[in-house]
This record gives sequence, C-alpha cells and structure tokens, in this order.
Amino acid sequence: MDISEKLVNKINLKTKPLGALGRLEKLAQQIGTIQNTLSPELKKPTILTFAGDHGIAKEGVSAYPQEVTYQMVINFLQGGAAINVFCRQNNIDLKVIDSGVNADFAKDPILINAKIAKGTKNFLTDSAMTKSQLDDCFNKATMIINQIHQNGCNIIGFGEMGIGNTSSATMLMSALCNLPVQKCTGRGTGLNDKQYQNKIQVLEKAKEFHRNDANTPQKALQTYGGFEIAQICAGMLAAYKNNMIIMVDGFITSCAFLVACKMNPKILDNAIFCHLSKEQGHKLLIDCLNVDPLLKLDMRLGEGTGCAVVYPIIQSAVTFLNDMASFQSAGVTNKK
Amino acid sequence: MDISEKLVNKINLKTKPLGALGRLEKLAQQIGTIQNTLSPELKKPTILTFAGDHGIAKEGVSAYPQEVTYQMVINFLQGGAAINVFCRQNNIDLKVIDSGVNADFAKDPILINAKIAKGTKNFLTDSAMTKSQLDDCFNKATMIINQIHQNGCNIIGFGEMGIGNTSSATMLMSALCNLPVQKCTGRGTGLNDKQYQNKIQVLEKAKEFHRNDANTPQKALQTYGGFEIAQICAGMLAAYKNNMIIMVDGFITSCAFLVACKMNPKILDNAIFCHLSKEQGHKLLIDCLNVDPLLKLDMRLGEGTGCAVVYPIIQSAVTFLNDMASFQSAGVTNKK
Repeated sequence: MDISEKLVNKINLKTKPLGALGRLEKLAQQIGTIQNTLSPELKKPTILTFAGDHGIAKEGVSAYPQEVTYQMVINFLQGGAAINVFCRQNNIDLKVIDSGVNADFAKDPILINAKIAKGTKNFLTDSAMTKSQLDDCFNKATMIINQIHQNGCNIIGFGEMGIGNTSSATMLMSALCNLPVQKCTGRGTGLNDKQYQNKIQVLEKAKEFHRNDANTPQKALQTYGGFEIAQICAGMLAAYKNNMIIMVDGFITSCAFLVACKMNPKILDNAIFCHLSKEQGHKLLIDCLNVDPLLKLDMRLGEGTGCAVVYPIIQSAVTFLNDMASFQSAGVTNKK
Repeated sequence: MDISEKLVNKINLKTKPLGALGRLEKLAQQIGTIQNTLSPELKKPTILTFAGDHGIAKEGVSAYPQEVTYQMVINFLQGGAAINVFCRQNNIDLKVIDSGVNADFAKDPILINAKIAKGTKNFLTDSAMTKSQLDDCFNKATMIINQIHQNGCNIIGFGEMGIGNTSSATMLMSALCNLPVQKCTGRGTGLNDKQYQNKIQVLEKAKEFHRNDANTPQKALQTYGGFEIAQICAGMLAAYKNNMIIMVDGFITSCAFLVACKMNPKILDNAIFCHLSKEQGHKLLIDCLNVDPLLKLDMRLGEGTGCAVVYPIIQSAVTFLNDMASFQSAGVTNKK
C-alpha cells in the first residue's frame, strides 16, 4: 500500500461519516503524500510578494499610474496592505521581493533585493527582457527559495504587485494555452469599458508583433515579462525541488504557475490553488490547468492575499488528520 | 449617511482597487452594520453543538445506530471530534448541549445540561414532542444564549449531533418551504440506494400522517422535532435579540434557521451562512432563503464544523476593515 492509500485509510477511520470532510480530506491526502507521512506538519508558512514594473504600463493598460507599484511596496514595508493584515492574522511570515520596481528602496527587514532592472521594456515594441535578465530572474529567485527552505519553511505562497502585470499574465496565458488574447484579458485593477477595449487592442497588437517569438515557456517569459512573474515561476520550480507545498494565489501567479508547469508538469502534485479570482481570465486558466481552487470569494487583489486568507483551511486539513480520534480510539460504533 | 454607507466609504478608501476583496467587503459591511460601528470586534467566539436523539431513528433512516449520538457526545467531551479539533485550531470556545440524548452524562466543563427527554417520540406515528416540551426547548436555549452573551460573546455558531436528525430537518424544510419530501431528502451520514429509498418512503408516510398538523413554524417543530433543532432555533432567535452575529452551519442548522426566520425574518441581518453542505437538500434550502454561503468544501458533517472552519475568514473581514491603511494614510495614488 502506498502512502496515499494509507492516508485514505487513516482518514476513513476518523469519527465522521466517510467523505464527510469533503475537500479537507483530499487536501490532507495531498499534503501527507507530498511529505510522505501519515502525520504531516506545516512549518514556518511564508508568503513572498514579488514586485516589478512593466514597460507596457505606459500604453494605458492599467487603471492606476505606474508609481503605485513603488507606493504599494512602501505600504507593504509599513505593514498597511491587505497582505500584511492577513499574514499577521494567520501567523504567516511575509517577505517582499523587489524583482524590478522603478525606484530605489532603503534596507528593510522584510524586503529582499532581487532587482533585475527598473522595470521591463515595453513588450508592444520590444522583448520585455533579455535572455540574460531572464536567467538572472531564475538564479535570484532560486537562491531566495533555497534560503527560505533552509530556514525551515515547508509551505510557501506566491503573490505579486506590479502595475501592468495582468497584461503580461494575459499574454503568457494566450501564448501557452493557445487562446485568443481577448478571452484571456480582464479588467485588472478596474478598467472602464473604453480602457478595457484599449487594453485588448494593445495586447492583440503585441501578439501580432511577437508572433514568432513566444513559442517556448522560456521565450514567452522573456517576451512578455515581467521580472516578478519570471521570479515567481522560478520560485515555484525551486519550491517543488525542495518538496515544499506551493500555494498559488490568483490570476497572475496562476499564469506564472502555468509557465512553471510547462517546464515541469510534476509541480502540480505540490500545488494548492487557493482561490478563484474574479479577474476574467482566471476561470479559463483554472480549467486549462484542470485544477479546482479552494475558495471563491470574488477577490481580485493579488499580493498573495488569496493564499493568506485560505491558509487556515489548509491548517484545518492537517489538524483533523493529526488530531481527530478514530472510531476505535473514541469507542464510537462505525456504520451499520 | 447611515452606518452601512459609512462602512462602504471606509472600505473604498483602503489601499486596494474598488471591490477587490469581494465577499470579505460585504462581510465587513454586514458585521459593522450589526455592531453599528466602523471598527467592529469579534469577541469570545463560541460554537454550541446541540445533541439529541430521535424516535424516528428506529425506522432505519440513518446509516448509523442511535447509540452513536451518545458516543459522539462522549467524543466531543474527550476532545476527539472534528468540531473539537477545528475549535482548538481557531481559538473558538466550544460547548456541547445535551438537548435530549438517550443517555445520562457525568458533569463536564464543556457540557451544558438542557435535556428535555431521552429522545423525541417517533414522528411516523406521533408528534415528536409535546407543546410543553417545545416551550421547554425555547426557555432552556434562551437562557443558555443569554448567559453566553453576558459572558462577553458577540459571535456564536450553531451545530448539531443526532442520529436521525436529517429526517427531522427534511420534514421541517418540506413543510415550511412547501416542497415535496423527496426533493428535500438526502443521504445524511451516507445511506446506500436502498436505505435512501426507505428514508424517502418513511418521510412521505409521516408527511401524510401529519397532513393537518405542521402548518405553523411552532407546530412543525413540535411535530417533527428534534429537541436539538428546536433549541438551535430558539438559540438563534435569542442570539438575534442580543444582537450577536449568528454563524449558520450546514443542512440541519439551516433548517433550524428557516424555522427561526419564519418567526422573525429580521434574523437574516445577523446571519452568516458558513458553508454549502453536500447534503442534497441544502442547496435548495439556501436558494429558498436567498442566501449565499461563504465556502463550498463538499463537507457534510454537521457538529458546527462549517462554522469553525470558516471563522478565520470572518476574522479576515474584520481585520482588513480595522487594520488596512487608506490611500491617504499610506500615500498611495488612487485610480486615474
């Protein structure tokens, strides 16, 4: 009997009707299988919020001006953003990664400097980054994840901040799922109808411009960016290599996951999709990946907030597996 | 401007795109409105698991024998059931109410004695309880809730345990939503096809037998029981009178809520539907009440487990409202 079957047996002997804890049972089974144990543990949960700027932002694809990326990083460092609040609530360690924000930051205990450049190039007329910058993204992110793993973390969530980054994510999804741009494009931080039409036009033009470029996962990342998305992709692959549990947030991190999954499909075994975002493309992407997020709370904020909010439910899966009595230990009569 | 509008304003000035926290925003607005404040607090969260036995159990309507009600209460008192595990995880105070279990219990710090009798009568051939027993249910439950409120609790969840109680719940739903028995009947703790058909037949026969009885919420409760369902109904009404937040669990507690709601429809203002149960009737009942549970995790365990698992998400709603920075306080540029 393999560990997965042993876990099902253990779950089925708990004092509850068969299957009555629904998705918590599947989650317990997944986590036990990852850790190859009947008594899994979640250690030093950590969320990394990767931030970067995007050349495409100057095409008016976001409802907010580019400087908001920098301002929101400052907000993260000051503890005032949604991701701070939810991480504090649930005792999750938060680190903010400067993947390529268009500004300089003073040293800060929660900030990790992994800056590639002060924003990607505009992918409407150029590749977002060079091959060497992409390699740099992978090297830096891998080192960060290895360090966090060495410090004892075995469950890690990925989030992002970057004005314009739904555009990059949309292009990655369109390229790698082979779907029309329009189907993958959403309103991001809240575009009105006119801005939304503009975004679609800009992205369709970019797809035409790069029609011969983005034909591998690596090339798609290099073509459309951003630095934070490439680092998340690399970070997820490194987390998988370290056999960590990977919490996937919303649309943008799911696109980063898509790229990672094209590079190593086994990464799916370690992934927990935390929530279904309201951003238009996410449902389609989720179907494309054939996964089923735990929550649907109509959130569309990014930052890793879906991971942070869902984390206690992941804990519930582990805690019932470890702490609930069995029919035998509790002296409860099983089914007739 | 009333408190609800003021709350929307406060939420809209937080450092996030408009509406980006989805249902957490609605929840924050609801909780702030209940407490009539821009800075609500969740105090001494408590879950009450009401347990009772059912005369109808002898008709083979459950997959488990009746003694499991008693055995599971012992499991609750020993801390080994799912509800114990989730309450410990989320720092929720748990009390178990003996509403009418067919056994005697020794004194125990988490057990509250509100026993009406050692099980209801079999509603296939009788009324589940007398009018005086129903009054007793209301008096005892009201006293319990008032006491808990006096101890400082302002958010309370309701759960249940009772072999046979999906049958009572089904009958209440059928009577008060005016729906055919078959549509409201599910497999409870896990009936096979033959047992399920038997359950439907038994319940249809009971409906025919009581065709002139169950025409008010009170009479329906008296006719079909159980003691724990009547006490939950009364407890919810008392919680509303004390302006507490009411967490509703799965199918059975939702049926108790349905009865309470027929007695005082304003109770809906204070209710949070925690999860959509996999028990067949629940989706229909949820539609009938025109509410939208927060989670859908395919759980169908009862005990209050849905409330306990969802509680951290309710905390997230309160915590972002209280602790997130505004655009102004964080110096972040708002939408173009």
